[in-house]
Amino acid sequence: MTKRVGILNVTGYAGAELARILYAHPGADLVAVTGRSAAGKRLAEVFPHLWAMDMPVDDALPGVLDIVFSALPHAAAAEQLLPVIESGATVIDLSADFRLKRVEEYEQAYKVTHPAPHLLQRAVFGLPELHREELASCDLIAVPGCHSTGVILALAPLCAAGVIERDVIADTKTGLSGAGRALNLNVHFSEADENVAPYGLDGHRHLAEMTQELGLLAEAPQPAVTFVPHYIPMARGILSTCYARTRPGALSGGRAQIMDMYREFYRDAPFVRVSDAAPGTKHVMGTNYCVVHPSVDLRTGAVVVASALDNLGKGAAGAAVQCMNVRLGLPETAGLQSLALFP
Amino acid sequence: MTKRVGILNVTGYAGAELARILYAHPGADLVAVTGRSAAGKRLAEVFPHLWAMDMPVDDALPGVLDIVFSALPHAAAAEQLLPVIESGATVIDLSADFRLKRVEEYEQAYKVTHPAPHLLQRAVFGLPELHREELASCDLIAVPGCHSTGVILALAPLCAAGVIERDVIADTKTGLSGAGRALNLNVHFSEADENVAPYGLDGHRHLAEMTQELGLLAEAPQPAVTFVPHYIPMARGILSTCYARTRPGALSGGRAQIMDMYREFYRDAPFVRVSDAAPGTKHVMGTNYCVVHPSVDLRTGAVVVASALDNLGKGAAGAAVQCMNVRLGLPETAGLQSLALFP
Amino acid sequence: MTKRVGILNVTGYAGAELARILYAHPGADLVAVTGRSAAGKRLAEVFPHLWAMDMPVDDALPGVLDIVFSALPHAAAAEQLLPVIESGATVIDLSADFRLKRVEEYEQAYKVTHPAPHLLQRAVFGLPELHREELASCDLIAVPGCHSTGVILALAPLCAAGVIERDVIADTKTGLSGAGRALNLNVHFSEADENVAPYGLDGHRHLAEMTQELGLLAEAPQPAVTFVPHYIPMARGILSTCYARTRPGALSGGRAQIMDMYREFYRDAPFVRVSDAAPGTKHVMGTNYCVVHPSVDLRTGAVVVASALDNLGKGAAGAAVQCMNVRLGLPETAGLQSLALFP
Amino acid sequence: MTKRVGILNVTGYAGAELARILYAHPGADLVAVTGRSAAGKRLAEVFPHLWAMDMPVDDALPGVLDIVFSALPHAAAAEQLLPVIESGATVIDLSADFRLKRVEEYEQAYKVTHPAPHLLQRAVFGLPELHREELASCDLIAVPGCHSTGVILALAPLCAAGVIERDVIADTKTGLSGAGRALNLNVHFSEADENVAPYGLDGHRHLAEMTQELGLLAEAPQPAVTFVPHYIPMARGILSTCYARTRPGALSGGRAQIMDMYREFYRDAPFVRVSDAAPGTKHVMGTNYCVVHPSVDLRTGAVVVASALDNLGKGAAGAAVQCMNVRLGLPETAGLQSLALFP
Repeated sequence: MTKRVGILNVTGYAGAELARILYAHPGADLVAVTGRSAAGKRLAEVFPHLWAMDMPVDDALPGVLDIVFSALPHAAAAEQLLPVIESGATVIDLSADFRLKRVEEYEQAYKVTHPAPHLLQRAVFGLPELHREELASCDLIAVPGCHSTGVILALAPLCAAGVIERDVIADTKTGLSGAGRALNLNVHFSEADENVAPYGLDGHRHLAEMTQELGLLAEAPQPAVTFVPHYIPMARGILSTCYARTRPGALSGGRAQIMDMYREFYRDAPFVRVSDAAPGTKHVMGTNYCVVHPSVDLRTGAVVVASALDNLGKGAAGAAVQCMNVRLGLPETAGLQSLALFP
Repeated sequence: MTKRVGILNVTGYAGAELARILYAHPGADLVAVTGRSAAGKRLAEVFPHLWAMDMPVDDALPGVLDIVFSALPHAAAAEQLLPVIESGATVIDLSADFRLKRVEEYEQAYKVTHPAPHLLQRAVFGLPELHREELASCDLIAVPGCHSTGVILALAPLCAAGVIERDVIADTKTGLSGAGRALNLNVHFSEADENVAPYGLDGHRHLAEMTQELGLLAEAPQPAVTFVPHYIPMARGILSTCYARTRPGALSGGRAQIMDMYREFYRDAPFVRVSDAAPGTKHVMGTNYCVVHPSVDLRTGAVVVASALDNLGKGAAGAAVQCMNVRLGLPETAGLQSLALFP
Repeated sequence: MTKRVGILNVTGYAGAELARILYAHPGADLVAVTGRSAAGKRLAEVFPHLWAMDMPVDDALPGVLDIVFSALPHAAAAEQLLPVIESGATVIDLSADFRLKRVEEYEQAYKVTHPAPHLLQRAVFGLPELHREELASCDLIAVPGCHSTGVILALAPLCAAGVIERDVIADTKTGLSGAGRALNLNVHFSEADENVAPYGLDGHRHLAEMTQELGLLAEAPQPAVTFVPHYIPMARGILSTCYARTRPGALSGGRAQIMDMYREFYRDAPFVRVSDAAPGTKHVMGTNYCVVHPSVDLRTGAVVVASALDNLGKGAAGAAVQCMNVRLGLPETAGLQSLALFP
Repeated sequence: MTKRVGILNVTGYAGAELARILYAHPGADLVAVTGRSAAGKRLAEVFPHLWAMDMPVDDALPGVLDIVFSALPHAAAAEQLLPVIESGATVIDLSADFRLKRVEEYEQAYKVTHPAPHLLQRAVFGLPELHREELASCDLIAVPGCHSTGVILALAPLCAAGVIERDVIADTKTGLSGAGRALNLNVHFSEADENVAPYGLDGHRHLAEMTQELGLLAEAPQPAVTFVPHYIPMARGILSTCYARTRPGALSGGRAQIMDMYREFYRDAPFVRVSDAAPGTKHVMGTNYCVVHPSVDLRTGAVVVASALDNLGKGAAGAAVQCMNVRLGLPETAGLQSLALFP
């Protein structure tokens, strides 16, 4: 029996991508969507590419749903989701509100008082590759930020194996849909085209969740992540290049050892593909896959791991549907098997 | 029972897109693919985005197949397809070899002797919107060129209704995957990026097929098409802007009349969407849809019709699968219902 | 002696390009700039690429200037420029306010009451290729719209020679800096990237000025222009493809005749290059050149002329400086000789 | 008196950019150019954007020149330049042949035997910011690789001050003109568009020259650079993000101290702009400027320095002309003062 699903705030790119994926999902029926400014319009007015699934954009969701995806902005999410959880729905939240376990870290990163700190321990971090079991039975899922997913999947096997030193560098390159649909000069076409620039040099909000999740995997001491994201002139995709150093004596088996370690770690992860070639984002565009390519230079001890994913796929809406599948006991890949649109 | 399908020359963009679509098709099994230079490799080596459907690239197809798609270049197609047809398979050819009814036009446009002129009358032009019935029972289907599809779908209702003068202009803007995967300075990234240029000003090969098909719809005299394609810096999509003049007294009902005429003409066409807003190619990226927007200026008598499609979707591989569906008696939309990847 | 020059409203792309060109101009000193929202800032804060010419953005220009460029929006321009003219400066206006001779056409196109209709007859249309002599001695210059320049330069020789029929089509493809620096969803990077779409199908404002100028060249009857602009995913450049039909018996000399006609017409125009190859916008990026490529198909009587220019160069700021040179009696090419940035 | 200048192998992007810059240079006359495959053609046939400086592409340069720029590929350069030097010309070489002091490093990186190792000690590394005095009197100048320039300028002040630990990371993002004009699938438009990917993970050739130059600045031990370049979908520009760690007690003055250190180091460098904002490549497009933005996080000890330059400007042809200026005793900025083309 298909499940009844709703989307809160369908009007951003993650919301639209959720709708697109759910349209072809065999086990879920999208029955209602909301959107603040667009309430009263039809979905196809807001997003012409969704014309075939035309439906009204409402003010509020109906009461009885199995799954509610929330693409509300942070703080707004935490405020509005409590009654939804209490209605019996499982909430899958794409905001940052429930990703961090420690309320102080949230408040420091987002400069707001957390509206519902009591829910933090109840929430599960929505990365099935690390939390599959907990996701199967929870009622509040916090989908990771798109940069976080790329960096965590790139570094998790190393942290879990305890083979790298504490300091790691994460340099990410993101397509501009990651900046959302809100108008801004830095994503105005003429300014963003033919340009690459770092941002968030004073500290990007995703840093805390990367550190939290990698720290859960690592023995003490906690990893210290330096994270610098960059805007590049394309719409979709994140390439994360992560740098670490081997601990003395570790990874002496070189390339073969590191590849084995990654393949073993992701053995049961249908959406992580460990590749022996350098990944490009175009090969995962429109999908829920993340391609990870680890390498080690035994001469210098440098470890470089590159990962590629679609920031709206595995970085947002795809991951949310993958979490839904795990939560509902559906095949983890249901509705997520399409291959990349190339070229 | 699913049908057994093969692809000749999978190594170009149309071939790869066929493979991608067939991977998710409910009624067809892709059992073998060939590729000239790539024979002996695995499909995923040639196209990493197809890794999930890894299969060998062979020298030749097995003998017993229901459908054979050919993405061979022109002239090569005509030579190699005769035995395939004789084996009992239905051939769906993406080259230009069987699109034109008159061999002289083919030979003038392509500067080669046609290798199999006796097959021309047997072939059906693969545009279900105009030839659905013939496609249902033929064994050789000639998928139109990508520019042709956009222009024919834009102008067909006007030609059929006899409301425009003889001279028409078709100005198309195409993404660069239309130029194929062969290396060439004019699609070298640094030269093509931030550039727009017309090409084929001495006569583009698709002109003859546009004229043939529009002529079949029109009463005498035949339409006279002036056609100029342009390269623009994007990978996928064709926008065709077509210009005509109303015959005296025709279309006096203006916008309402022309919209009605188009909606009626495409009433049974699941992949043509008549829109009252100007179309953009991004709204059909990765799909088999063509959005058509007709307009008329009663003051001047000018008719402008814009159409948008994905050159590898409805302009090539999508259309080929649509033809297969019609031929096999499957729902016309089988395997082709995914929505556009946006943004 | 270098002339004292000011810019009203430097904060858009045309204003910034004016500043950039004037920085290297041998005969003009940019002494002051204004900008509405940016008043009080430094120019390099608004446009980091202009850091080497850092100067304050003021509220108003000083009183005694030789040349004042206005990049104010339409209607605002007409209101504010009268006192500037009266101060003795020559005004070179990039808005639409003084391009049209007939106030009704302006008011119909721009939906405002013209604030200074008495100035219309005093203004000279800023296309030195057609109005060089009048420009040398006027005090109000109306720089053409970017689409207009491309279309007029493409069609002027044909109109002047009286060799084409009345109806002409102008299909233009423009980079997105043409839409200005104001934020808008249709030039939001993720929406505009990989997209091409027509706009202004209900009538674009530049149509009236094209018709006026081509009409001045043509004998009666006036040309009837159908004009459709398109957005394409690049920052700079306009490619105009213009379609006409030869009058019976005209242009029977074919390609040689039409090339001669164009070369003769533009013999004294240093910035129009008549080319026997199809032009691309990338070859004129950052310059004041317009490349024009005429062609005629004697079999069908179809004439196709393509022109390429930089919408911020010959389409705006470059043309304005060219007009200044003519007005001041400087070499027409002063400060405008740099070659295209390629690739 | 202007100097007589020639270019060997003008047919690549660096050669064409040299020609473009020299066209407007007040102290140098470009009198001849060569090009292997293009010999016998006109320069404007090979590069239409250079039409205004049309000249023949010859087989060989005339004997008596003051400056010869060589854009020959590596190994070819070393073979052909000896007679040029002996003719009395100063050679400015854009290949890698004379950048490294130790022939073993060259031969290991480039997998060829060095054709003229005796010239290595005579050559000066063409970075005026580090070698201005030696450049003023040498006869063989080795212009650095484009990645090297960005990384060295980003890290030089830190290495010279001895404030960072030995291990540094250089993550660069380059526009695709850096891959040259030779056709290749990875810079085929449809494959490169909307894609970002690392390359050279097994060791990029520029690594040795970065290490050499940073090592000359640093006290022992030598810096150990991990360098990963990435292709991004744009034509021009390199953004280098460099990561290091402060030595204990160093840089305790934080942001103010590091900014002062950089400003002091580059006090006399007209083309290095130390910025307190994150740099974007678009703000230096078409120029010889490099914008450097240093930052330090006192809490973690992480130092991040980002630099932006135009790979064909300061990364190749611009730097070569800057070296010529220094060598000839001209103002260092002669011919190089144009501002960025924006947007």
